[in-house]
Amino acid sequence: MPTLTEKIIKAHLQEGVMDKGSPIAIKIDQTLTQDATGTMAYLQLEAMGVKQVKTELSVSYVDHNTLQSGFENADDHKYLQTVAKKHGIYFSRPGNGICHQVHLERFAAPGKTLLGSDSHTPTAGGIGALAMGAGGLDVACAMAGRPFNLKMPKVVNIKLTGKLNKGVSSKDIILKVLQIMSVKGGVGKVIEYTGEGVKTLNIPQRATITNMGAELGATTSIFPSDEITHEFLKKQNREECFVPLCADDDAVYDETYEINLDDLEPMIAMPHSPDAVKTVREVAGKKIDQVAIGSCTNSSYRDMMIVASILKNHVVADNVSLCISPGSKQVLTMLSENGALTDLISSGARMLECTCGPCIGMGQSPITNAWSLRTFNRNFYGRSGTLSANVCLVSPEVAAYSAIKGCIADPREADFDIPAEPDHFEINDAMIIPPEKEHPEDVEIVRGPNIKPLPENTPLADEVEKQVVIKVGDNITTDHIAPAGAKVLPFRSNIEKISEFIFRDVQPGFKKHCQEVGGGFIVAGQNYGQGSSREHAALAPMYLGIKAVIAKSFARIHLANLVNFGIVPFTFVNEADYDSIDEGDVLKIANLHELQPGKNMTVVNTTKNTTFEVAHTLSQLDVDILMAGGRLNYIKMGK
Amino acid sequence: MPTLTEKIIKAHLQEGVMDKGSPIAIKIDQTLTQDATGTMAYLQLEAMGVKQVKTELSVSYVDHNTLQSGFENADDHKYLQTVAKKHGIYFSRPGNGICHQVHLERFAAPGKTLLGSDSHTPTAGGIGALAMGAGGLDVACAMAGRPFNLKMPKVVNIKLTGKLNKGVSSKDIILKVLQIMSVKGGVGKVIEYTGEGVKTLNIPQRATITNMGAELGATTSIFPSDEITHEFLKKQNREECFVPLCADDDAVYDETYEINLDDLEPMIAMPHSPDAVKTVREVAGKKIDQVAIGSCTNSSYRDMMIVASILKNHVVADNVSLCISPGSKQVLTMLSENGALTDLISSGARMLECTCGPCIGMGQSPITNAWSLRTFNRNFYGRSGTLSANVCLVSPEVAAYSAIKGCIADPREADFDIPAEPDHFEINDAMIIPPEKEHPEDVEIVRGPNIKPLPENTPLADEVEKQVVIKVGDNITTDHIAPAGAKVLPFRSNIEKISEFIFRDVQPGFKKHCQEVGGGFIVAGQNYGQGSSREHAALAPMYLGIKAVIAKSFARIHLANLVNFGIVPFTFVNEADYDSIDEGDVLKIANLHELQPGKNMTVVNTTKNTTFEVAHTLSQLDVDILMAGGRLNYIKMGK
Repeated sequence: MPTLTEKIIKAHLQEGVMDKGSPIAIKIDQTLTQDATGTMAYLQLEAMGVKQVKTELSVSYVDHNTLQSGFENADDHKYLQTVAKKHGIYFSRPGNGICHQVHLERFAAPGKTLLGSDSHTPTAGGIGALAMGAGGLDVACAMAGRPFNLKMPKVVNIKLTGKLNKGVSSKDIILKVLQIMSVKGGVGKVIEYTGEGVKTLNIPQRATITNMGAELGATTSIFPSDEITHEFLKKQNREECFVPLCADDDAVYDETYEINLDDLEPMIAMPHSPDAVKTVREVAGKKIDQVAIGSCTNSSYRDMMIVASILKNHVVADNVSLCISPGSKQVLTMLSENGALTDLISSGARMLECTCGPCIGMGQSPITNAWSLRTFNRNFYGRSGTLSANVCLVSPEVAAYSAIKGCIADPREADFDIPAEPDHFEINDAMIIPPEKEHPEDVEIVRGPNIKPLPENTPLADEVEKQVVIKVGDNITTDHIAPAGAKVLPFRSNIEKISEFIFRDVQPGFKKHCQEVGGGFIVAGQNYGQGSSREHAALAPMYLGIKAVIAKSFARIHLANLVNFGIVPFTFVNEADYDSIDEGDVLKIANLHELQPGKNMTVVNTTKNTTFEVAHTLSQLDVDILMAGGRLNYIKMGK
Repeated sequence: MPTLTEKIIKAHLQEGVMDKGSPIAIKIDQTLTQDATGTMAYLQLEAMGVKQVKTELSVSYVDHNTLQSGFENADDHKYLQTVAKKHGIYFSRPGNGICHQVHLERFAAPGKTLLGSDSHTPTAGGIGALAMGAGGLDVACAMAGRPFNLKMPKVVNIKLTGKLNKGVSSKDIILKVLQIMSVKGGVGKVIEYTGEGVKTLNIPQRATITNMGAELGATTSIFPSDEITHEFLKKQNREECFVPLCADDDAVYDETYEINLDDLEPMIAMPHSPDAVKTVREVAGKKIDQVAIGSCTNSSYRDMMIVASILKNHVVADNVSLCISPGSKQVLTMLSENGALTDLISSGARMLECTCGPCIGMGQSPITNAWSLRTFNRNFYGRSGTLSANVCLVSPEVAAYSAIKGCIADPREADFDIPAEPDHFEINDAMIIPPEKEHPEDVEIVRGPNIKPLPENTPLADEVEKQVVIKVGDNITTDHIAPAGAKVLPFRSNIEKISEFIFRDVQPGFKKHCQEVGGGFIVAGQNYGQGSSREHAALAPMYLGIKAVIAKSFARIHLANLVNFGIVPFTFVNEADYDSIDEGDVLKIANLHELQPGKNMTVVNTTKNTTFEVAHTLSQLDVDILMAGGRLNYIKMGK
């Protein structure tokens, strides 16, 4: 009676017992990295002294930092290319596509575990893989052959019935789920999709849903592997990867929701959260300034063909700037071959490279006070590069139809054809460079001057008495902590430099402040660290002397990153204590060396002359890592 | 017996006599602007109180600042779109293409005068227009119906004989001309191409030559309008624009050179100057890191087809990053329709938007110490965004073949087909928004917060005693003075902000220094201000208190820009005096109010206790403008 999740975990279990919430460790079959997190991950892999990766497959993608407004990005790409060649890793060259799209096309396989240094790694759940995002250090550890540590997740069943109407998209399914569960509703859970409705969705449609399951805070999302999965793999010349997989009929779930696809209508996530979901009908007619189509959520061949079909013989409205980033070279080639690309170009769309692009603020920032519709997965405040912009998340159908109407518009009113499934996918892996098998020792790793050594941390002190350097509210994202965008991302391999941007839009001058007071504590509300897996949101605060974060609750990946870099993640036992703390208060935590699983600790607010209790969810391994001052120190101690 | 240049000037002469070197003023039929210079030009047009432009045609293009790493660029685009609609100007939307490529396709006409706020405006000389680059203020004045002031140019004849061999390109012709004449060899001259060889070159090939004639420092370059011109215009549905035009058979030229196309071989401009020209043979085999194809010089349908033909069934070498920016939506659409785009994509090329892109450092900066081959027109130090990069300028043939070979390679060894001329060009002007004809007064101009009012200058003082704030050598480009690139260009409408970048890579802290000492003088060598027409290289120094530049010689457009913004351009009477001046010396120029055409002045070096003579080439109009503190002040005085 196991769920699909439990089956895959059981097949990969290396440590622990599969009790919900218990620490377990599982074998990782595949890893992926992208360039914005990958440089750091491979520096860590090198620091561990690993010669050849121990996974079945590891792939290094370049898709984030592709604008290259200075030498830094290009140098990182060269480093990634050479370090991959030397250490047994496949390298997907810039322009080959977005990591999750390419991985789905060419590598992801049902039943495999995949760990990626990107929070949207669950995309591969669309093909039946157990695919999880993690910090770069966790991915490096997986490449080094170490199992991945997590808490045994709860499993949620989302049962799909019926069939989507024309103009309604799988993006609307995940937006509906976000409306139901919220951005913190998935923490500690895997979302499994079941029911007859599953059979009406092709692999890219499924992948859109599992991709954006990241926005629930879920550990991952997964679809069964069925005949549709089989067909997809056949058309990608990868039939040998196919295994049928699903939950047992009598599988027991921790929660169950049912969505009738017949009843679903186009949805939209309003500023500034992926769960601020309304129906498109409710906001239709609102004038817009920009439409951006692409990202790992909606850049598949299927999505681009729908967009081309809607745009065909139409012109983008005068008041709208439309940009389109196809997801991969495979997708772009197929669009070019079948003529759909001409329809996109003729409509006046700005055709961008096959990369993440505007989704991570890498260009195409909209105008001041813009309303921007995007087929992406995140509309966090400021992520577009324009602080005053109002970014909404929609399906490709809504995006394309709104672009020609000039306002938010319901694509059920549009006249278009649903494109046929392709007979085959165009396969050309020329832009994926295999690792050097014969003489890896001869490969010279090229390091540009922006690639700095990893900063080091000291073991945890027994007593810490320091200021609260910043106090923030609920749902603070890793974008708030460590912004992305074209101005910051070039420094992902230079922690000293990137630390200048920490909390840039929340508390300008944060770095200077930390340096003046010698670091301290962060106090936060619910769901601290949601969003991107970027470990820079832990690594740079560590560099600035942050010793602990005391929050009402944490997002999974960020909590793991804090531990990895030696910052203690505490939660309030009594959430009301959050209100009693002000920025600048001095807190004292004594006896940190007595930290142990399940044991609460006492914090003294020496400014207010009060005390309060804090809890944590740390395993013994987590505690050992924290005591060492982070995971790399821990590993270097021979652990 | 007039030359073609003299015929067109005569037909447009409004003031002055056509004696070589004499001040003349000619009627301007067409103007164009691009976004990096256009915002300023239209602010100036507005400041003049012009309601509707007085030209036959004015077009505002967006092609430079298209990465949009913040709200600034998008806001500028919106301003440009609305100001164009209100004032009678056509607006070419972002993604529609590079101004010179689109203008050649859709607007440029033989015998017309065209003034553009971009130094590569001479591209339209390929179709027989007299097309000149100028500062934005000059273009604004032309839109206001004022004639364009220049010195009657000398006319140089470059007589082409023979026919290019396969693998040799019109780019090699202009590189050969640059080798012969150097980057300052064209100052004060128009370059006319004649001879039987002309008939072997199609319009895009001719335009490549006139485009890069800008690098000679020439006023412009021009080809006759002949049957090939006629055919091109027919295929663009613009046959009505055709007039046959050429120099009289007995035309008298100031200089004549002859190039036999049969003997020409692939050429390459080595770092860091367009005239550091060698044959490709001399440097073949040198390993490269990047190839960039595109720019207003080499992004036509013809160029892209050649590139596709060379890349077909090949893959970009592992060590090379290849990016391609087609020149216009027309070009991209045609490539998409005929399948050539698939060949480009399949080769692993990174397909960028139809914009200037890497040519102005707008992304695709290469790796540290890179060797980068580019089909562009300028390889000035630092322009790529990577200071340590070695940028070489080559033809599309050399670029494409080198990309697959991984090193500098001679395309005469490549196996490829020369593509046929197209039967017609794909015409779709949907991305060109016409101005509002009915109710222009109702159009609301949208100004983002980065669009700041124009800084104002004061009338010229009679005596100036100030420091030499910087002393520079020969061939200083406007890129040295006012760098471009993704980090600086967003501030083209914000002079206070952009002044922080003045002389960034030459004398860091220049702004602060100027502010501390209250401005002063610039001392320079030969050909000061070559390159881009950007008036920011005069406007920002004016803002920082620069009162005069004393140089051995000036580039034409920059000299005009200095006058327009009230900075006096002096030349050394005795070039040896250049050596006697050090940075920080205090110079005194008295009796500036006695400035008049042809009269030298005396400068006292109060630090060294010496004096020296300076000359100038100012007309009476120039003097009047300088006295007023710049052209806008002059116009506001009712002149």
